[in-house]
Amino acid sequence: MTASTDGQVGDDAPLALQDPDYREAVIDLLGAIAYGEISAFERLAEDAKLAPSLEDKVAVASMAAREFGKVAGIHARIAELGADPFAAMAPFRGAIDRFHEHTAPSDWYEGLIKAYVGDALADDFYREIAAYLDATTRDLVVSSLEDSGHAAFVVDRVRAGIGADPRLGGRLALWGRRLMGEALTQAQRVAAERDALTALLAGGIDRPGLDLAAIGRMFARITERHAERMAELGLAH
Amino acid sequence: MTASTDGQVGDDAPLALQDPDYREAVIDLLGAIAYGEISAFERLAEDAKLAPSLEDKVAVASMAAREFGKVAGIHARIAELGADPFAAMAPFRGAIDRFHEHTAPSDWYEGLIKAYVGDALADDFYREIAAYLDATTRDLVVSSLEDSGHAAFVVDRVRAGIGADPRLGGRLALWGRRLMGEALTQAQRVAAERDALTALLAGGIDRPGLDLAAIGRMFARITERHAERMAELGLAH
Repeated sequence: MTASTDGQVGDDAPLALQDPDYREAVIDLLGAIAYGEISAFERLAEDAKLAPSLEDKVAVASMAAREFGKVAGIHARIAELGADPFAAMAPFRGAIDRFHEHTAPSDWYEGLIKAYVGDALADDFYREIAAYLDATTRDLVVSSLEDSGHAAFVVDRVRAGIGADPRLGGRLALWGRRLMGEALTQAQRVAAERDALTALLAGGIDRPGLDLAAIGRMFARITERHAERMAELGLAH
Repeated sequence: MTASTDGQVGDDAPLALQDPDYREAVIDLLGAIAYGEISAFERLAEDAKLAPSLEDKVAVASMAAREFGKVAGIHARIAELGADPFAAMAPFRGAIDRFHEHTAPSDWYEGLIKAYVGDALADDFYREIAAYLDATTRDLVVSSLEDSGHAAFVVDRVRAGIGADPRLGGRLALWGRRLMGEALTQAQRVAAERDALTALLAGGIDRPGLDLAAIGRMFARITERHAERMAELGLAH
């Protein structure tokens, strides 16, 4: 992969990346992922303050560090594609910042659920969209998805909390719905503003596409997995 | 290295670690370092909010993630020595938390200088004390010291800030002195409370020791390096 000085991708690039619309869409996608990781880091570092013990704080801080650890590779790929990583992130700051403003956890449990459910929702979306990417970009996106065992920690803490105070379950179930609703609201806003990114799902040279029914099924799968996670946490959806 | 169930170090351990006072001192030292890294992470993540641009925020967040990245290896070593990492950190929380409470940055530049000067001071101290450790512990402590190029970023930003507003230099020079003073105050408090840690410097089986004059020279070297760094930042000491 080479990028010439005018920001165009070289002739040795995969066929898909020679399509300027596709290249723009990939840069958008990577910019959104990178800013998502940076702001997840910030919010998790903030939520770590709510931890009831140093053990819990360290667990959340390591989730934060894990999110941040993904940023460098994504920035490097954006630069390889001839774009500036900070310029690529800029269009997504508004929507992602709004998501976090509208879902500021009011306590430790809300923070835990947001960390777990938010990260998993993003991973599900990336896993779905990876199928529509060229191989190199797909590998990068998929490699950032490995679960590092934090899920078990969150499930354990949330179940114990509900065990000690059953009313907590009702409040956290509502919280999970609110997280999902806010994520969809902001995703829709981004989709409406970023034509290249939306067109990505429609396919192109060398890449399969999705019709509206297939997009509907994709969102149904993501919603279904969210419901499964809420159930695993002991929360009615 | 093996640790039997009663928390004693096995016969195959280095001679020094069979000395219970030395082992206690090493666990103390590693506990202090680990909690220092965790709280550095927290404070840097907090200071990143003061960044004037997303580029600056990412630079400080990566300093935070770097600090946190050192914790797991130190915790693993504490566990190898038969101690609980969280119990090992507990005696140092008070002093380290007080250091941070008394040196909360009031703006971006104070945060930058604290990150740079504080990290470098800690590294200088660890480098000095490493000479009095068994080989395995020494390698672990030294490996956490590599400079990852953040110094250049801080020097660049602080010099540019002083260039734009020369009065900033005087304020930041005072701030650097305050950081050093507060670090010494808290270090002295720890030394007074933790006999095993203080005894470490006095030497023992297999390990050289320091007399009072040598301890004085050690602190003189640390202070000298602090002054060099302040000068490099364009700040009169």
